[in-house]
Amino acid sequence: MHTEFASCIKACDECAAACDHCATACLQEADPKPMARCIALDIDCAAICRLASGYMARGSEFARRMCAICAEVCEACGAECAKHQHDHCQECAQACRRCAEECRRMAA
Amino acid sequence: MHTEFASCIKACDECAAACDHCATACLQEADPKPMARCIALDIDCAAICRLASGYMARGSEFARRMCAICAEVCEACGAECAKHQHDHCQECAQACRRCAEECRRMAA
Amino acid sequence: MHTEFASCIKACDECAAACDHCATACLQEADPKPMARCIALDIDCAAICRLASGYMARGSEFARRMCAICAEVCEACGAECAKHQHDHCQECAQACRRCAEECRRMAA
Amino acid sequence: MHTEFASCIKACDECAAACDHCATACLQEADPKPMARCIALDIDCAAICRLASGYMARGSEFARRMCAICAEVCEACGAECAKHQHDHCQECAQACRRCAEECRRMAA
Repeated sequence: MHTEFASCIKACDECAAACDHCATACLQEADPKPMARCIALDIDCAAICRLASGYMARGSEFARRMCAICAEVCEACGAECAKHQHDHCQECAQACRRCAEECRRMAA
Repeated sequence: MHTEFASCIKACDECAAACDHCATACLQEADPKPMARCIALDIDCAAICRLASGYMARGSEFARRMCAICAEVCEACGAECAKHQHDHCQECAQACRRCAEECRRMAA
Repeated sequence: MHTEFASCIKACDECAAACDHCATACLQEADPKPMARCIALDIDCAAICRLASGYMARGSEFARRMCAICAEVCEACGAECAKHQHDHCQECAQACRRCAEECRRMAA
Repeated sequence: MHTEFASCIKACDECAAACDHCATACLQEADPKPMARCIALDIDCAAICRLASGYMARGSEFARRMCAICAEVCEACGAECAKHQHDHCQECAQACRRCAEECRRMAA
């Protein structure tokens, strides 16, 4: 089943979960102010990852286009997360980078 | 409140509803086979319209990028719907065209 | 077209936009810490409002069930927003209350 | 990270992908008419699975409520899919049943 996209779907789903988790964890930090852009990008990134995942699972004619833009958002989110030393940010940065790579490959 | 995006958000929301309605109505036609691509694009289009709507409402740094790709999907969906004479397809084609225009303007 | 649900769809879409806007605006406040639960509920509420909107537009057999749970989230989000004096919170509280009422009516 | 919900998040993500794949595959059958309810429930189920996945990943106060309703939709979708002999339907039925079980456990 949709084997071509299988590993990218998985990367998107894992990235979405990491972003959602990071957003919540950032909000629970003692001072969430410096995390504002991180939280905003986490929300954006989770949304586009889940959307791209669905397009791939449906074998949509726009699946590759969605992967391309998903990669862009993942790269921005991963770069922002990487700046922060919290575990949830570092884990999210990794998930974003992995997802961006998978999405770039699909979009190519 | 997010006045810059207000009319595009509205067009996206209305397009999403028209697409969702069209997908269901296509499935209820006596012979849904010729509507297969219409249904598939309706599902895709509803998803990206709601996503773009959210990006705009959050004033996301990626809002304009999402509008650009939303316009592409709306154009494809509108062109497919326009081929079919059912009322729900013609109404959906119109909603798609209106949304594509609004999104193009935002993306510019 | 899906006339039965039209005003509830509109209320859900407007509530989703108000919640998304409120989340971003809360993050931009000088001290977002006291807004953490407001932001979290805004994200939840925007998501379920857009989902319920789609279920209604598709005339889903689960549309009324989704309206019932959407009303619950709207009520929680509206009650939280109402505690804060920011304009975006007060506007969001209103949109949540209106949406909860429409959803309660649909769910009945 | 969000370990309590990890296996339910995975079940939801896999169920969403199976449903999306099933919807597309049903539309490509020679006669999609008998698959109309299957397709409609696939779309509904994919949407609520992704929503519930996000609520869990964010540790939302409504996560368990969403799991409860997600289980209901999964059960309906799985029961419908199980009636059809296509591989994609049988695989989707299994994913739905597994997801319903995980969600019931979370909701308890």
